[in-house]
Amino acid sequence: VVESVAMTLSAVPRLHEAIGRVRPVDVTWRDRAEARLDELTKPPHSLGRLEWIAARLCAIQETVTPRVAPRRIVVFAADHGVTEEGVSAYPSAVTAQMVGNFLRGGAAINVLARAAAADVCVVDVGVAGDIDASGQAAAFVSRRVRPGTRNMTKGPAMSEDELASALRVGLDIADGAARDGVAVIACGDMGIGNTTASSAMTAAFLGVAAAQVTGPGTGIDGEMLARKIDVVRRALATNQPGHDPLAILRTVGGLEIAAIVGAYVGAAAHRMAIVGDGFIATSAALVAASICPPFLDCWFAGHRSSEPGHTLQLGFLRRRPLLDLEMRLGEGTGAALAMPLFAAAAAVMNEMTTFDSAGVAGRTENPGRMAILP
Amino acid sequence: VVESVAMTLSAVPRLHEAIGRVRPVDVTWRDRAEARLDELTKPPHSLGRLEWIAARLCAIQETVTPRVAPRRIVVFAADHGVTEEGVSAYPSAVTAQMVGNFLRGGAAINVLARAAAADVCVVDVGVAGDIDASGQAAAFVSRRVRPGTRNMTKGPAMSEDELASALRVGLDIADGAARDGVAVIACGDMGIGNTTASSAMTAAFLGVAAAQVTGPGTGIDGEMLARKIDVVRRALATNQPGHDPLAILRTVGGLEIAAIVGAYVGAAAHRMAIVGDGFIATSAALVAASICPPFLDCWFAGHRSSEPGHTLQLGFLRRRPLLDLEMRLGEGTGAALAMPLFAAAAAVMNEMTTFDSAGVAGRTENPGRMAILP
Repeated sequence: VVESVAMTLSAVPRLHEAIGRVRPVDVTWRDRAEARLDELTKPPHSLGRLEWIAARLCAIQETVTPRVAPRRIVVFAADHGVTEEGVSAYPSAVTAQMVGNFLRGGAAINVLARAAAADVCVVDVGVAGDIDASGQAAAFVSRRVRPGTRNMTKGPAMSEDELASALRVGLDIADGAARDGVAVIACGDMGIGNTTASSAMTAAFLGVAAAQVTGPGTGIDGEMLARKIDVVRRALATNQPGHDPLAILRTVGGLEIAAIVGAYVGAAAHRMAIVGDGFIATSAALVAASICPPFLDCWFAGHRSSEPGHTLQLGFLRRRPLLDLEMRLGEGTGAALAMPLFAAAAAVMNEMTTFDSAGVAGRTENPGRMAILP
Repeated sequence: VVESVAMTLSAVPRLHEAIGRVRPVDVTWRDRAEARLDELTKPPHSLGRLEWIAARLCAIQETVTPRVAPRRIVVFAADHGVTEEGVSAYPSAVTAQMVGNFLRGGAAINVLARAAAADVCVVDVGVAGDIDASGQAAAFVSRRVRPGTRNMTKGPAMSEDELASALRVGLDIADGAARDGVAVIACGDMGIGNTTASSAMTAAFLGVAAAQVTGPGTGIDGEMLARKIDVVRRALATNQPGHDPLAILRTVGGLEIAAIVGAYVGAAAHRMAIVGDGFIATSAALVAASICPPFLDCWFAGHRSSEPGHTLQLGFLRRRPLLDLEMRLGEGTGAALAMPLFAAAAAVMNEMTTFDSAGVAGRTENPGRMAILP
């Protein structure tokens, strides 16, 4: 008989306290924003989901003139003991090497964050290898909880203390972003093996078979994919996390995923707009939404990853992604590509003129606002 | 018996000459770009359709370091005689009023172009009303061919001479953009009544019933939508354009749509990347693709409009849109929102580092490039 791994929130007091500060948005601000949108020189609702983003931003910030700067992308990096089972096309050493690459500015997230006018902060929450931290292209925060998780096929990936520490890292990052006035934040990931952890988490949350939520990750197939599915199945059988969110996170998650959970809850407590990324970051969103439902009022599905489990995650969260470009890189790259939509939505609210002030004739009858689904 | 309205390209010599300068892209440049993309520090193909954009840009420009600036959005404005049939929620006067709004900088396209770092050029190719051209927020080109088309339910919307003039306006705009070094261009539209013309064009091109391609436009339904469908049906019955592209454009098109055809062909001849917009601009793409198939090598489906006929148009052109945000405003707004994806794709090519130079370990086996569909 396996001992219960269920955890209560009181075991992680910092997180518990932050959850208490997350409140649902006041929908009257959304209504005010929509009324304003209908006065602007365009047919009502004709900017579609951009208007939905705009109204959400307004509700989060309790204004009809939302701001979208500064923007920040935080990349949480950590290693995974489960890589010793042979689940990735890349060696674990790549995690530390890519952190060095982020700091030197040569990775996809550096380039795409720059294009989105967002700054980049890289957080070592559990990298196993040595990091060349000489690069100056991104901020670097060293908060290594341990050098990678334990192999989850043999027992819990983390201890309760390690989980609490990783969550605290994310909460601290959110507090720092709030001090810097960040209006729009995204969390990305770097960690060889982390699609395996995310597959296990997603199977547990959604109650589906490992094969349904385990995909190519960085690009495996055939025999290696079959092994990865088996590893996910064994990790769940060993740990038996049930449906308990913190037990799932602790036993089959990752240090970077736990840190993202902390950052997500903290960012929602500080009323930032949170742009979701792909399969790994959305695994963290499953946890955050489960332990803190109003978190979702601040969270936007930035894009749909081509990793098959991501579509199931988005369905579970009942969100349609803003972008669908068949990307599967992680690092926050999907969120970075979505950020210009937030800048555009805010610009519509702040810079467009009204029919009255432009001297443009309106339509005769004014239709009711159509339902705009998220 | 209706006299044949078919037109040969020799009737429009400027267009004919420009078509002769449009050549298919050299796919070896796409292959070189893809080889370069596979050296960058990311799993192969993991940036999905962004890599497809990047490779296309490279093939268009015959380089592996593509440029995406300057960017320009040209809004062609004209009125439609068919509005006297009662097909729009807005009066025709709005066309001229919105042109004034564009020049003062208060419209959606001004705001979204600014967010995309694109300049805006507004072209009066056939507005019926007086324009207050005192605003300085956009360039203004006055090339009015006639004050709106004729009512297409009673005969051809344009004469052959008028069509040739409108096409020339677009060709001149493309030449001007080339002189200014424009790398990425989009064409938008302003013209009350132009979804009715586009519906008629689309029904003729695709050989489908008017009801299938006639939608709410700026927001009509019920009795008014039924009338609009009947108007489209009558316009096609009166003019019998068959499947002849220039006959369709002349008899049931619009002056702004014809100008976009000219600008599209001209921009392809100058090897600009062309970002498609919604239902009106894509009606012009149907013509351009029919008379000049290699035009499509330079044209990208920027977004999917919620106007139902647009999805059918994109299917006909065999393109998946980059964005799908339920927008239906026109003006080039969908293209403007897609432009940051081009900037991002070029930045990936120009700014990311390679595995070798970053000292990051690659994967063991290198998979073949997967087919990336447009």
